[in-house]
Amino acid sequence: MTMEAFGDEFGDEQPWTPPAERQPGWLSEEELAGARGRVPMLYVEAVPVRVDPSGTIATVGLLLRGSPTTGRITRSLVSGRVLHGETVRDALMRHLEKDLGPTAFPVLPVSTVPAVVAEYFPWPTSQRIGQSLTDPRQHAVSLAFVVPVSGECQPRQDALEITWLTPGEAASDTIAAEMEGGRGTLLRQLLHHAGAL
Amino acid sequence: MTMEAFGDEFGDEQPWTPPAERQPGWLSEEELAGARGRVPMLYVEAVPVRVDPSGTIATVGLLLRGSPTTGRITRSLVSGRVLHGETVRDALMRHLEKDLGPTAFPVLPVSTVPAVVAEYFPWPTSQRIGQSLTDPRQHAVSLAFVVPVSGECQPRQDALEITWLTPGEAASDTIAAEMEGGRGTLLRQLLHHAGAL
Amino acid sequence: MTMEAFGDEFGDEQPWTPPAERQPGWLSEEELAGARGRVPMLYVEAVPVRVDPSGTIATVGLLLRGSPTTGRITRSLVSGRVLHGETVRDALMRHLEKDLGPTAFPVLPVSTVPAVVAEYFPWPTSQRIGQSLTDPRQHAVSLAFVVPVSGECQPRQDALEITWLTPGEAASDTIAAEMEGGRGTLLRQLLHHAGAL
Amino acid sequence: MTMEAFGDEFGDEQPWTPPAERQPGWLSEEELAGARGRVPMLYVEAVPVRVDPSGTIATVGLLLRGSPTTGRITRSLVSGRVLHGETVRDALMRHLEKDLGPTAFPVLPVSTVPAVVAEYFPWPTSQRIGQSLTDPRQHAVSLAFVVPVSGECQPRQDALEITWLTPGEAASDTIAAEMEGGRGTLLRQLLHHAGAL
Repeated sequence: MTMEAFGDEFGDEQPWTPPAERQPGWLSEEELAGARGRVPMLYVEAVPVRVDPSGTIATVGLLLRGSPTTGRITRSLVSGRVLHGETVRDALMRHLEKDLGPTAFPVLPVSTVPAVVAEYFPWPTSQRIGQSLTDPRQHAVSLAFVVPVSGECQPRQDALEITWLTPGEAASDTIAAEMEGGRGTLLRQLLHHAGAL
Repeated sequence: MTMEAFGDEFGDEQPWTPPAERQPGWLSEEELAGARGRVPMLYVEAVPVRVDPSGTIATVGLLLRGSPTTGRITRSLVSGRVLHGETVRDALMRHLEKDLGPTAFPVLPVSTVPAVVAEYFPWPTSQRIGQSLTDPRQHAVSLAFVVPVSGECQPRQDALEITWLTPGEAASDTIAAEMEGGRGTLLRQLLHHAGAL
Repeated sequence: MTMEAFGDEFGDEQPWTPPAERQPGWLSEEELAGARGRVPMLYVEAVPVRVDPSGTIATVGLLLRGSPTTGRITRSLVSGRVLHGETVRDALMRHLEKDLGPTAFPVLPVSTVPAVVAEYFPWPTSQRIGQSLTDPRQHAVSLAFVVPVSGECQPRQDALEITWLTPGEAASDTIAAEMEGGRGTLLRQLLHHAGAL
Repeated sequence: MTMEAFGDEFGDEQPWTPPAERQPGWLSEEELAGARGRVPMLYVEAVPVRVDPSGTIATVGLLLRGSPTTGRITRSLVSGRVLHGETVRDALMRHLEKDLGPTAFPVLPVSTVPAVVAEYFPWPTSQRIGQSLTDPRQHAVSLAFVVPVSGECQPRQDALEITWLTPGEAASDTIAAEMEGGRGTLLRQLLHHAGAL
């Protein structure tokens, strides 16, 4: 299995389960590969933040992940696919718990209108779209949110660690260079949305 | 003192304090009356909601207030003025605590961009503006938010009680008729923003 | 071919073209059916509006479509799928032109963050999600926008006519009953977003 | 008269008019000074942009203004106060026409919910608020928008010229250094909101 730029839900899908027990929406890699080449894949992404009582962002959590193939360490957001039959809210909760552990206590926004709509293409995008986000695997459209967490984060699965940075640090060129697919720009967009820069 | 359609912060301003100890931004009623006739007054408003773990709105909190003059009972949102020198976030927190008590534990949104900008005029508004919100005292512009609360609400000051309704009940014509200044429309706008209707 | 609740782009896909000339992202019905059962399908939707110079909505455009099977006439929004490799903006422009003709001159919003994220399921949705939108064909997630048009609208393809209503008329129960899949609620959400109700 | 960091509407207010003919909401400088020290002043701000047919931002318009006292040239946004009795939309249209001339043909957003709420204080703001916007004259809260223009811009009043830059140029440190009160940050927020960076 190659490094998943998006997070990802594949760890969940790997263990074989009898068809009857398989959750609807979870696909074999072949089935998923088929859909991937045909339609845009819907994702959710979130940057976890710690806020003070008035809601101002104090720190920003970034996940450290290691690539099994290149060994390269990258920083990423909470991210994953919306499954067939799953609501956007449920997908967001599932990926937050998968990446931050069960005691993070994320506070989801009351509206599912995202802070940013991020569009990833498997080829370089033209100037016609402001963002230049890429994903070598697929065309993906991601609903991206800023999500306050009030509990303890315990990274799971392929995330090695979560690092807490100030908004200014998180928006730096150094951090942007450590994020894949141009997500440094997305992170700045999200922090600007929250008025944190 | 007449019933304050907006909440309001006047209870806070009443007790005499020596000038040196007065908070900047708190005005005598004369000073406030002077400003009121000259510039639009900036307000914040919030509808407190209880949400399930995925962030979906379960119930909506409406304040019951009694009018000292007419004795009429009306339902209202958390509401109050932004003081000179005060941030929007601090004003929102102050009014939430004033109206819901110190143990409501409101979760403010990460962005100060409101769900709705509500414009109140002391005269009937023309068709040119969709909303028809009125406030006999003043021209007010209000930044309105949907704010989840996780603790216990204990109404204070002039609020008699807080009632928790389903989103559908809160958006009914019956409730709209019990709100002053056309705020039933504002409440529906806020609930639609949250995808709760 | 059955009536397409979503608009739809299938008229575009029907004419056979040699594979080399086929636009990437356009699928045979079999290919599309395969993807449909496996992943949520990404759509864009738009309600066209006419605005006065200050941007206030004067009238709302609803499409009349006839069902080839039932003969029933329904009202609908501009709507269609985002193709593989297509940006959200390009999909929105393509469907606006497809449904309103080439001289509608729609003015797209500067941000691709939608007014509403509409989630359609092929089964009745529980209370857990405020909206109760359904699409018998698929699980679809739609980015929905309010789009001013300044030119002449000439409905094409399967749209019979476009009717212009006041925001109040468009939000009525009568109109809601003439829209499929619960889109009357979506329309009200969009009009509330624009402050037009 | 000193340089007005915010635009401004004072050129409009200067000519003496008999009280009966004065527009409600226009104040003498003394009256305005009185209100300024007592309540936050409500402003609207806009960055004019040129967009391609799909709504993607091609260029960003910045106003050049000269300070009568220091002679310093600064770059600014369209900006001005909301008058007593005036709607947010009308204020936005009035200031766009004042700064860009009558043939700019701005397209106002369908919603008055701003892209950014900008808070200006006459003193340095603490870390508690992400933005560090200052205005030596007053505490101001500004509803800030990104507004496409389709016509010819002819700067009027105290604006010397309008310069059109790419989004990347407009977001540069060089340009930020030429904007007063920290508005370079606001401009980046607005461009990030529009997905243009």
